[in-house]
Amino acid sequence: MNVDLLIHSAAQLVTCASPGGPKRGAAMRDVGLIAGGAVAVDAGRIVAAGPSAELRAAYTATRAIDASGKTVCPGFTDPHTHVVFAGDRVAEFEQRIAGASYMQIMAAGGGIAFTTRATRAASAEQLAAEARPRLAAMLALGTTTAECKSGYGLDTASELRILQAIAMLDQQQPVELVPTFMGAHALPPEYAGRPDEYIGLVVNEMIPAAAEWYHGSHFAARGTPLFADVFCEQNAFDVAQSRRVLEAARAAGMRLKAHVDEFSALGGLDMALELGAVSVDHLDATGPEGIARLARSGTVGVVIPAVNFNLGSAHFADARAMVDAGAAVALTTDINPGSAPCPSMPLVLAIACRYQRLLPSEALAAATINAAHAIGLGDRLGSIEPGKQADLLVVAAPDYRHLAYQFGGNLVERVIKRGQVY
Amino acid sequence: MNVDLLIHSAAQLVTCASPGGPKRGAAMRDVGLIAGGAVAVDAGRIVAAGPSAELRAAYTATRAIDASGKTVCPGFTDPHTHVVFAGDRVAEFEQRIAGASYMQIMAAGGGIAFTTRATRAASAEQLAAEARPRLAAMLALGTTTAECKSGYGLDTASELRILQAIAMLDQQQPVELVPTFMGAHALPPEYAGRPDEYIGLVVNEMIPAAAEWYHGSHFAARGTPLFADVFCEQNAFDVAQSRRVLEAARAAGMRLKAHVDEFSALGGLDMALELGAVSVDHLDATGPEGIARLARSGTVGVVIPAVNFNLGSAHFADARAMVDAGAAVALTTDINPGSAPCPSMPLVLAIACRYQRLLPSEALAAATINAAHAIGLGDRLGSIEPGKQADLLVVAAPDYRHLAYQFGGNLVERVIKRGQVY
Repeated sequence: MNVDLLIHSAAQLVTCASPGGPKRGAAMRDVGLIAGGAVAVDAGRIVAAGPSAELRAAYTATRAIDASGKTVCPGFTDPHTHVVFAGDRVAEFEQRIAGASYMQIMAAGGGIAFTTRATRAASAEQLAAEARPRLAAMLALGTTTAECKSGYGLDTASELRILQAIAMLDQQQPVELVPTFMGAHALPPEYAGRPDEYIGLVVNEMIPAAAEWYHGSHFAARGTPLFADVFCEQNAFDVAQSRRVLEAARAAGMRLKAHVDEFSALGGLDMALELGAVSVDHLDATGPEGIARLARSGTVGVVIPAVNFNLGSAHFADARAMVDAGAAVALTTDINPGSAPCPSMPLVLAIACRYQRLLPSEALAAATINAAHAIGLGDRLGSIEPGKQADLLVVAAPDYRHLAYQFGGNLVERVIKRGQVY
Repeated sequence: MNVDLLIHSAAQLVTCASPGGPKRGAAMRDVGLIAGGAVAVDAGRIVAAGPSAELRAAYTATRAIDASGKTVCPGFTDPHTHVVFAGDRVAEFEQRIAGASYMQIMAAGGGIAFTTRATRAASAEQLAAEARPRLAAMLALGTTTAECKSGYGLDTASELRILQAIAMLDQQQPVELVPTFMGAHALPPEYAGRPDEYIGLVVNEMIPAAAEWYHGSHFAARGTPLFADVFCEQNAFDVAQSRRVLEAARAAGMRLKAHVDEFSALGGLDMALELGAVSVDHLDATGPEGIARLARSGTVGVVIPAVNFNLGSAHFADARAMVDAGAAVALTTDINPGSAPCPSMPLVLAIACRYQRLLPSEALAAATINAAHAIGLGDRLGSIEPGKQADLLVVAAPDYRHLAYQFGGNLVERVIKRGQVY
């Protein structure tokens, strides 16, 4: 049989295959390694994956890639990003090093309010233009799919404009995007002291508008879900407010995510698990009981070590304990202008292995199949299995563990998205 | 006047100019910023640097680069590398995450002994071939000059072979190399329990051989110095042994460096300062008195946060205190297969700003002009000043602080080495 693409002779093919759901606990160590492996791709999908000798006998190919001495693995899914925004916060970064507190920076007009002002002033085209180089950097570092949140607009028109920018970007460049509505990211200044009123706006106006936008978008036509997310935290939204948002979003047909336990364990974790959230994200303050509940749930725990790194912190979410408890853990960059100006999933793997004591195998599963499940696409991508979308990386190293062992460079030599070679 | 190359219209030109020596203390904050700057280059040297309008009036150019919206800064000097070695230690990385101690890894045949076995078995050509992709990664990330140590051979023939590989590499690819003889990097297994005998071999056989090799090499012809280095540490060499090495090296015409205070403050710092070392490197265990003595000396302090990061440590050398005390501080990757498989100076800046609280300006000075002084080449490179070698970067960001603010990607868009554009 002739296929479009045959990648053969890989020193290692790591499939990350996980039929039936994300990898949990000890299963995260099994990356599905095939020494001397090959992948056959046709019409954007994986046709076969297995020993190179077998596939070379079974398939001829329009294009062949010799991956001798290299590793082939699934493209990374980055399951938590705020990559669409206007403006940078480089000045604030310097102020923070010099000792300014976050409250001082906020008082000086910085922080998320700065990004909201710049984002509100930008057109959808401008937002897309600012995000494109970031997505190009992510692609070059191996990210083939990324979740992408609104949440810097904080009024109905601006939130919709960000969602429109996400849809434009999804059609303009190779990184596949999955939209998340996050109107409840922060309290906008005009609602200071009136959080419940703002939640009323989110629930009564923004969510219906986002749902209507979604049903008219190419995302709905393609079967890509729309998520809703909320920042459940002190100085953001409490558990009751967060629940109002997520229940309304669920009623509007959205799937659910929640920022929980980043600084304090308010109870958002239990609330999100109860509502059947697809993922709970951050989990820095989650203790043993919360980890046990996460492990018993069907929800993926997304940990974000790039944020702790960005703060120069020695504290990280206890991803080791989560895996040991049997949870399904995913990794993400959280790329955003404040707490993680970082496009690199490989660096996130490197940080997680060093500061969260994940094994390279666990980190790879967390960045591929589990990350795909964290955005509801685990059945379509995230692993190298026949029938799945052909989202693949050729890595310039003979062992997948180099992706976490080496750090700061970029071992990703080729990125294949839906069978196209970049 | 016509010149070979004019880089103009840079949003920021940061010269890092520092006539008369490295930047010390508060002077490290002055990066010599020219908004709307340009650099004229001819015959591999900088002819002029200043406001774009002035240079565009004064020079025509065979090649022009429009750096609108971008930053132009000196190429990075990486002043402490072990980039020439054979074999990787990816398996050991995984063992360490799983909880194995360094002693257990050593007992299982890992650690530096593993690298020494592989390096001894490799020809100079093989060593150069293994190092070339690493140097290519460093170049792409902005490193235009790197110090490069022997020290995985640990017998006379193998140490010389590494030095020969360094000379070959210097002539094969664009990153300019500065050789360092480091026979006293570790005690080879065949000298177990006989460190003074091994030091005798280093002093009586290796140093004369290295000096003879150097005088016949192109490095001597070009005026590039040969350095000697020693690992002064528990389980490596004590202060008296380290002094024997450095005094013999000095007598043989080498300039001096020393690995000191990485795990314990044995006294190596004072010894190295007394001998007039060009740099002292690591300094993780250096306390306030040592920092004060460093600040009063003419020696550059090289800190290595990538190693602390690689260990998943919350402890870093107190570079903040060093700068505040008035010392000249430099940054480096220490790229090596064990403690820092990292080619990226930008990531080192990012770590230093977050975990050592250096300002982006200080980190940039530490990676350019001060790093050049740390390898004795501060008069020839490390800053953008007329007469200096044209080693420059075009950075895809409008503000130099992005080099440290963003992390994990690569903002370096073009690298210019001796006037050649890569």
